[in-house]
Amino acid sequence: MSSGPPTQIFYHPGGVTREERAALLRQTGATVWFTGLSGSGKSTLAMALEQALVRRGHAAYVLDGDNVRFGLNAGPKILANTRGYSAEQAARFGLGFAATDREENVRRIGEVAKLFADAGLIAVTSFVSPYRKDRDAARTAHETHQAGAVPFVEVFVNTPIEVCEQRDPKGLYRQAREAMAAGRGLGFTGIDDPYEPPLKPELTLNMATQTVEEGVAAVFDYLTARGLLRG
Amino acid sequence: MSSGPPTQIFYHPGGVTREERAALLRQTGATVWFTGLSGSGKSTLAMALEQALVRRGHAAYVLDGDNVRFGLNAGPKILANTRGYSAEQAARFGLGFAATDREENVRRIGEVAKLFADAGLIAVTSFVSPYRKDRDAARTAHETHQAGAVPFVEVFVNTPIEVCEQRDPKGLYRQAREAMAAGRGLGFTGIDDPYEPPLKPELTLNMATQTVEEGVAAVFDYLTARGLLRG
Repeated sequence: MSSGPPTQIFYHPGGVTREERAALLRQTGATVWFTGLSGSGKSTLAMALEQALVRRGHAAYVLDGDNVRFGLNAGPKILANTRGYSAEQAARFGLGFAATDREENVRRIGEVAKLFADAGLIAVTSFVSPYRKDRDAARTAHETHQAGAVPFVEVFVNTPIEVCEQRDPKGLYRQAREAMAAGRGLGFTGIDDPYEPPLKPELTLNMATQTVEEGVAAVFDYLTARGLLRG
Repeated sequence: MSSGPPTQIFYHPGGVTREERAALLRQTGATVWFTGLSGSGKSTLAMALEQALVRRGHAAYVLDGDNVRFGLNAGPKILANTRGYSAEQAARFGLGFAATDREENVRRIGEVAKLFADAGLIAVTSFVSPYRKDRDAARTAHETHQAGAVPFVEVFVNTPIEVCEQRDPKGLYRQAREAMAAGRGLGFTGIDDPYEPPLKPELTLNMATQTVEEGVAAVFDYLTARGLLRG
């Protein structure tokens, strides 16, 4: 625990209402949370959805798993090199890939997505986020936001693991298989660490049987039907 | 340090350009970073600026020092209670008010503001942020963003400490003075911890001699003159 100067923290409601933001942007802010195995097509879908939304006049922003690792959720090395953090500070606040670190990674992204959605944007996240508990916590954070509940749309990208492994865009499955063969597990999702599928996702896609365009259209139609996007 | 599955992190440029976002929102995203003593008027200015921007058709969002302490930068207790973090996890990732924790608090906010500005919004931050090094690091993070440099506008709210202490909206100066009198320093900014004024802020305000409306107008005029807001 930490010490420091006296502090009292109060939540300050802002001077701008949710309705004013919605009127300005012609939409209600929401988070679209893609979850699925590595190689399932999450990032491709997220980028394509953002593009489709912006080109139709809707403010949207992708929070990508890799990209935030350069900034908000940087690892110890980046924090030491770019911020001058001491080794101790960098080790404490920098995020690696251990289970606790991945949980904190997902938590921070959920909180940031919530702020974007509260600001009126369609926040689109693209993370494996394999554990049900972590995704449900992100949903709860949205539903219990101090400034009012924020819509959370969980999209399960249920592409079969055989297809994900065949694509293997980053060569990660191959590395995981090699490690397994060499007798050292790596905790890789789908190989030697579980992926817990959503129990009640708002949408389920399968990029082995659907095109990117079809997947994006399904999300777009869902957001429209729910009244979150206005023409 | 942490171990975990194999990973390679690449920065993925999105499918939406900065120009497309600017055309959609009729503005160029930027961060307006208010810095100044407790009680100097930062939060009031930030909320009023956000309101003025939105009412003139510009997307803006305040990242408030207190508010993010409920979510992204929550302390150990909130992390244990709302996320089920173990005591060890909560102590590691939860932010208190020690010097290292405050530095990390400012760092995360700078990173989130950068993402909002990259998304095309006017991000408005309201934090004491007393150390030059931390503010400069936030500026550097904006200037070196992988997706392209993001404008960073530092606004020094230079209200004299006597006025801040007289206002003392949260009673923090009184507590700090009492602690000093009792022989235990608290590291309170302006009392027994330094506030390092910006050397080259884009703007300087003084809420002892200016009204909130005048302060907001000064920032609005600056953003317009710099070409960041379009009519």
